[in-house]
Amino acid sequence: MALYVLAADLGGTNLRMAVVASDGQILHRERCPTPRNGDAGNIVSAIVELVNRCRQAVGPETFIAGLAAPLIMNLSVGKVGISPNLPMLDGFPLQREVEQAIGVTTILENDATAAAIGESWLGASRGVQNSICVTLGTGVGGGLILNGTPYRGSDGTAGEIGHMVVEPEGHSCGCGSRGCLEQYASATAIVRMANELALGGKSVLSGQTDFSASQVYDAAIGGDTVAINVYKIMGYYLGMALSSLVNVLDPDVIVLAGGLAGGWDAFIHSTREQIEKRAFRVPADRVKLVRAELGDDAGLLGVARVAFSSIVQGQLGV
Amino acid sequence: MALYVLAADLGGTNLRMAVVASDGQILHRERCPTPRNGDAGNIVSAIVELVNRCRQAVGPETFIAGLAAPLIMNLSVGKVGISPNLPMLDGFPLQREVEQAIGVTTILENDATAAAIGESWLGASRGVQNSICVTLGTGVGGGLILNGTPYRGSDGTAGEIGHMVVEPEGHSCGCGSRGCLEQYASATAIVRMANELALGGKSVLSGQTDFSASQVYDAAIGGDTVAINVYKIMGYYLGMALSSLVNVLDPDVIVLAGGLAGGWDAFIHSTREQIEKRAFRVPADRVKLVRAELGDDAGLLGVARVAFSSIVQGQLGV
Repeated sequence: MALYVLAADLGGTNLRMAVVASDGQILHRERCPTPRNGDAGNIVSAIVELVNRCRQAVGPETFIAGLAAPLIMNLSVGKVGISPNLPMLDGFPLQREVEQAIGVTTILENDATAAAIGESWLGASRGVQNSICVTLGTGVGGGLILNGTPYRGSDGTAGEIGHMVVEPEGHSCGCGSRGCLEQYASATAIVRMANELALGGKSVLSGQTDFSASQVYDAAIGGDTVAINVYKIMGYYLGMALSSLVNVLDPDVIVLAGGLAGGWDAFIHSTREQIEKRAFRVPADRVKLVRAELGDDAGLLGVARVAFSSIVQGQLGV
Repeated sequence: MALYVLAADLGGTNLRMAVVASDGQILHRERCPTPRNGDAGNIVSAIVELVNRCRQAVGPETFIAGLAAPLIMNLSVGKVGISPNLPMLDGFPLQREVEQAIGVTTILENDATAAAIGESWLGASRGVQNSICVTLGTGVGGGLILNGTPYRGSDGTAGEIGHMVVEPEGHSCGCGSRGCLEQYASATAIVRMANELALGGKSVLSGQTDFSASQVYDAAIGGDTVAINVYKIMGYYLGMALSSLVNVLDPDVIVLAGGLAGGWDAFIHSTREQIEKRAFRVPADRVKLVRAELGDDAGLLGVARVAFSSIVQGQLGV
């Protein structure tokens, strides 16, 4: 029997699952809305339901499971430390509970780290030793591949690039700090800044009460000065944080992933300009700033890769 | 015959050398002023002179050599990329030239990375997997130990913590950027900020034209409000950069080294306060902020360790 990974990506909106083969091929997919009400048990139940559907579809093969989720890990206690977007998971022993419920060995991985691993395995950063994957979505996440392996830090919390300080006394952040990158380079930030700058009435967005980062992008492409400036500000702060990372980590590749990376044309010039102005010449000349290639599958494939690697390393004793 | 490392630390002021045994014991020391005039050949000659004195003192043992220097490495071309404090070394093939001149295999290492390795081997960060060593001196340097090994990045330039951006449009920096940590947390910055703040005439430093960071520290300990504020500002920006690093790298230990770390009492409260306010709870609770233990020997011992390790790894074929 073949060995497959039941790879799940638990997002703030959707829970997605795929049956992944050891070469990265996806054999089957399932999805459902992420249960956002009630306790963590509802999330476990939703995972069990998708696992059952996947098993029915693929047949009696051998499985292990991998789960990518928006968690701040706490490896030392085997629990989710905190999960800002899914607070019912705070302090919950997710890995153990899922493992017991589905009856197969389960790997838990931070979603941004999983995306970095996926892009490093089969996507935009394949073949290099040192890469950084920055996920620009509702929030800003990050994952690090250093010396060819995922770098998770001592608790498993490493890679929180969205919470680097870029403006000392800037906008307050949900994490408790101020001026975090996430407050300037997330979809949420794009909408907030557009609302602030459109107040003057000189934008197509002025007077609108409910618009998305994607609509701000459309306005920018259409020549709206306010929208153009919003994306420039985003690119400026993103470039500042990335120049710090270039100086500290000297990576080969920085991958920009997540929905907001779709606004590439509107911010990338400002981002590159900051890196060129600020980072040291040698690492700035080396680093390639590229768009992710795996889209929504990066996390699924990344956590599948971790699950397969854990077998190779004998950690699971399969 | 025993195998020893001729370990050299090439500073902006002094060239120091030690004969180091594989357990870190220092058998003999030499030093001379760093030749700051003329071309790079003068530096090579000074190294040769100290090597000869060491060999005479220790006798006919087997040696390899290690050289720690304030360089931005460029591993891809085997040359020193740039050396802001010793510009005659820019683009100079230092490792090859020293090796040919002294006739033994020579390892070249960035001085801040060497200090991080030394502290990790025998000093304040021994026994942990992930540590950051920040050198607070004339400038601000840094070295990273990640997953138990030195992390140098793809060109060898990693660890330039002094050139993380902490103030977007702040004081201009010699590196070409603005608002780098080095502009707020180096001895040079302490003196500049004290000069700026003492202009109002309300400090014991007011009217003085030539004072050191150490004198600003003495004034702060003596209760001088301006001097106290200078060290608070330094601690604030240092804490901001370290909180970004705690979020990105989740280290066990951050070691503060270099002469300015002697001002510990005057800045550490502000630094800790920023980390507590800004960094995520799990990694902030884990990380220990400590003073270096090896003083000026950190770089010598670190580069000796690299030289010994290279033999173990068979890279030198000794």
